[in-house]
Amino acid sequence: MIVALLVDDPISASRDTAPGLDYDAAFAAIDADPRNELIVVESDGEIVGTMQMTFIPGLSRRGAERAQVEGVRVASRHRSRGIGRKMMDWAAQRATERGCTLIQLTSDKARTDAHRFYSSLGYEPTHEGFKLLLN
Amino acid sequence: MIVALLVDDPISASRDTAPGLDYDAAFAAIDADPRNELIVVESDGEIVGTMQMTFIPGLSRRGAERAQVEGVRVASRHRSRGIGRKMMDWAAQRATERGCTLIQLTSDKARTDAHRFYSSLGYEPTHEGFKLLLN
Repeated sequence: MIVALLVDDPISASRDTAPGLDYDAAFAAIDADPRNELIVVESDGEIVGTMQMTFIPGLSRRGAERAQVEGVRVASRHRSRGIGRKMMDWAAQRATERGCTLIQLTSDKARTDAHRFYSSLGYEPTHEGFKLLLN
Repeated sequence: MIVALLVDDPISASRDTAPGLDYDAAFAAIDADPRNELIVVESDGEIVGTMQMTFIPGLSRRGAERAQVEGVRVASRHRSRGIGRKMMDWAAQRATERGCTLIQLTSDKARTDAHRFYSSLGYEPTHEGFKLLLN
């Protein structure tokens, strides 16, 4: 179900649908890691949203953890109902409770709607997000 | 020494020099976490470079870990000697050995020299990097 949500998106579908590594093992790895949390939003017994939070310890910013959000997805037929906003509000609250001083994410430059959404929540696009595919 | 390197930079100096959390505790947290590695480069007994790698498990990209690089710094008087390039080559190799399919980083939009550097290594600036400071 969560994987179905991740590929319910034209950008993700191109890279997440091919067969490959084991989702059960990946889920178990996230579940066992105290610095990774997979968030699932249910509505009437249906999974309507998911995101992952990673808490990264570091020496920058005076030793505080930073929170990173990846894989934010709301099921296409449940969009524009405020679910994403509630998820991001929850993420900021969770990060604050953990003592994080910063919450960060990257968003594909093609996702202009998402950028307006994050800006409306106070996020600032201060950084370039670089990726390098490895073989 | 590592902290001195992190603040040897006009952008970082503004946020990393104030007193605050305990660096020893932060270092211990990184050291104890099997998905976080603090890399230190020495030359003639002197620390000339540092970076942090975080290996993030996830359900996207068919369950592969992604590698993230943060806090890449080369001591100002050792720059333009290829140290940064060697560090990034090492990071890509380390990530590949771990089975990561992707290596990612964000870089402040003011760091245009760094952007040229990452692009020269094959990194693509495909994403917007959003940050939200928390209180």
